[in-house]
Formats: sequence, structure tokens, C-alpha cells
Amino acid sequence: MDLPLFYAKDILPSAKIFTLDEDTSKHVIMVLRHHTGDAILLADGKGYRYRCIITDDNRKRCLLKIEQVDKMPAPAPACAIGIAFTKSASRNEWFLEKAMEIGIQRIVPLLSKRTEKDKFKMDRLESILISAMMQSQQFYLPTLSEPVVFDQLVKQDNTAQRFIAHCLPAQKTYFGDALQPGKEAFILIGPEGDFTPEEITLALEHGYQPVSLGNTRLRTETAGMVACVLMQSVNEAG
Amino acid sequence: MDLPLFYAKDILPSAKIFTLDEDTSKHVIMVLRHHTGDAILLADGKGYRYRCIITDDNRKRCLLKIEQVDKMPAPAPACAIGIAFTKSASRNEWFLEKAMEIGIQRIVPLLSKRTEKDKFKMDRLESILISAMMQSQQFYLPTLSEPVVFDQLVKQDNTAQRFIAHCLPAQKTYFGDALQPGKEAFILIGPEGDFTPEEITLALEHGYQPVSLGNTRLRTETAGMVACVLMQSVNEAG
Repeated sequence: MDLPLFYAKDILPSAKIFTLDEDTSKHVIMVLRHHTGDAILLADGKGYRYRCIITDDNRKRCLLKIEQVDKMPAPAPACAIGIAFTKSASRNEWFLEKAMEIGIQRIVPLLSKRTEKDKFKMDRLESILISAMMQSQQFYLPTLSEPVVFDQLVKQDNTAQRFIAHCLPAQKTYFGDALQPGKEAFILIGPEGDFTPEEITLALEHGYQPVSLGNTRLRTETAGMVACVLMQSVNEAG
Repeated sequence: MDLPLFYAKDILPSAKIFTLDEDTSKHVIMVLRHHTGDAILLADGKGYRYRCIITDDNRKRCLLKIEQVDKMPAPAPACAIGIAFTKSASRNEWFLEKAMEIGIQRIVPLLSKRTEKDKFKMDRLESILISAMMQSQQFYLPTLSEPVVFDQLVKQDNTAQRFIAHCLPAQKTYFGDALQPGKEAFILIGPEGDFTPEEITLALEHGYQPVSLGNTRLRTETAGMVACVLMQSVNEAG
């Protein structure tokens, strides 16, 4: 299945025909030089894959006939991460791209006491996730929530397995060992200066397990990415 | 142990005094504004940590008295990766930074049939590893070898556990399951266009196990980083 894949946010599984928006039309027809009669794939980010034939290669309003719609298997169980974004936009964007490639399903920008960044261009972040979804041939776009204040999040989230990765000396289990396969997991990753002791205490009081991500000192975005790999790994393992 | 850490390639464990080179002197004295009497740490990249006191805060030739030398525990067993670098320098550099943070010990730039890049600024790549080593407070600088031709490498390397990650349909074990803890491991990561069938066959003939890195399609540098996490993970797990 190596047909080119494009994103169409508003397509519905019941559709028989579909008109690509102007940007995507331009990309398909002008940049990639597809013609009437070519087959392409669309993803709606909600798990559906649409096999389409170009019926009018208009460079502004490319028209498609939908030949087949498949519901793709959902990545189960859901892996989620709450992460304090860094000052560096490129490091945050890099994290989102890699988390998407590896297979994250929910990302919560975390406003902790020492978070360095609390304003985001959500559109830009969303478009990075979409590109990475296309690149890695996936069909479920993760939820990228609005930034949430740490205390509020910790008190409200009730994911089955909840973890907090921090660097303070304490009894901590290696995250790879603490994770149970087949259950939803949610991990909190702190800012460069780590969570405060008060934040860690609050999380523990609300059922978060303290975990370590290994013996080396990781940057925030690296820690986030390592956590994503370990969450994916526990469910891949045979 | 939160003293600032610097790299000193040529220091010897037997040294009693040491003069920092001009760049490092400038960084320590001018940028970070350390003075005579301050304590700093040096790493030689070979596993030694030197606790030093500044005895002359000369901005070009900062003089140090070495108070204590410790041999740090080596990350065992050794994890190594052979990876086909991409056209994008930033993606390659990003991979090196993350591999160092996670704890890789040997990196071999791989010249496979479809490798997109075969010329490297080795000095630049080395300096990225050094920065990441300092950042993640590690003391062993990985070996970054000169680029090696695939066929030659596959015939010569005799690491205890040898793996090849590829995307062709085949019987493959998940890398996290195939790895045995406590043994040296070496994994080959292909270019964006993957290894050729002939390359894969040659590797299998030379005892490489075919492995997968999960169900999603990963970019080369992401695959390399996922492999590093899984190699580290199998030895961290309790």
C-alpha cells in the first residue's frame, strides 16, 4: 500500500466524492504532478483511510471519487504524555514529530511552576503532528490539548496508570518496569529545572507513581521521547 | 554533584595540575565568570572525572589544581549502532545528540547502497557528542568511527548480538524482545529508502537477526533513536 497519503480533516466516511482544499489540491496537482485517473489515499485523522481516484485534476479544487473506505485498527491501549514545553520552539516541535512517529495518542502541554514556555502557536504544533502522521503512514491524529496547569491536571486526570518522571533523589521504579501492558498510561515530564518537591508530593497524593527514565540526565524533549518509546515498547513486546 | 562540567581531551589521570585550552578558558572565565578558588569538574571522555580548583583565572590559560580523580562506572554492556546518515545535517546531528544522552557507546556511519550522505564533517559531529556528553553529565565519549561500507562492516563485525532493522515484509522479531540483557549489541539502521534485499540477505548470512522497531514507519533518525532507547531499556529493566 504505497499510494501517496494526504490529510483531509473534514471528509466523512459516508462520502462518495470529495473536493480537496486549495492547498492540498496545489500540492497534489502542481507539486506532485498527479493527474485525472491517479489513485491517492486520504486520512481524516480519526482512523479512516479513503482510497480515491482523481476525477478532475483542478489545481485549486481537485475532485476525487472515493472508491473504498477502511477503518484502520486503533493503536490500543492509549498512551498519553503531559510535558512542560521548553523555551526552544524547535525542540518542542521535534518532540511532537517524534512522539507522533512513535505513536502517542494524547499530548498535554503542562504548565508547571518552572515551565519555561506557556504560549504556543497551536496551529503550528497541530500542523507538525499532521505532517508526521502522513510521513509515518498513520491514521489517528493525537489529541493536542490546550495547556493545563499542573495542579489542576493532577487532580483531575484519572487514566488507569499514572506516572511522574522526576530527578529528585527518591525511591523510583524504572518506567519500563512500572508499566503494565494493555492498560492506558499517562506520564508527566517536567521542565529543565524539574518539578518542584510540592508538585511531586501532590502528584503522589493523587496516585501518580514516581518513575525514572534511566541513569543518564535527559533533556525535557529527550525524556518525553524516551517515555513514548517505553510506552509503545511494553505493548509491542510479545 | 552539581559542579559545572567541562571537557578536557588531553588530561591524564596522573595529572596534579592542568591548563585549560584557550576556548575552554574563555568559556569558564569570561562567559561563566568563574574565579580563582572556584571548583569545577573535568571529563576526559575516557571515564575519568577530575575535581579541580581554579588556581589562576587567566582568560586564555586557566590553571587548575586537581584535587580528586574518580573512575566512573562504565555503561555495560556496550550498545552500538550502524546508521545510514540522512541528507539533512540537522537530523543527523539531532540523532547524535539524543543517542549520546540516552547512552550509546559506538556509532558507525553506514555507507549502504541507498545512503544519501557519505561526506561528513567529523569534527562537527564529534563536538555535538561532546556537548551532549557534558549536558547529560556522562564521562564516556562514544566512539564515532569513520564511515564504513555496508558489505565490509557486515563481514567484519563480530559483536555478540547483531541485528538489522529493515522494512521489507519478512519474519521479524520486535527488537525489544530479541535483545538479551547483559550482552553487547550492535544494530544496523538503514537509509530512508531502506536496505536493498541483497544487503539484507548478506547481513542474515553473517548472523544478523532481522528485527522490527514497532508498527509505525519511522524516519531513519527516529529509528536510530528508538533502537538506542530499547538497547538501554533491556539493561535498565530490573
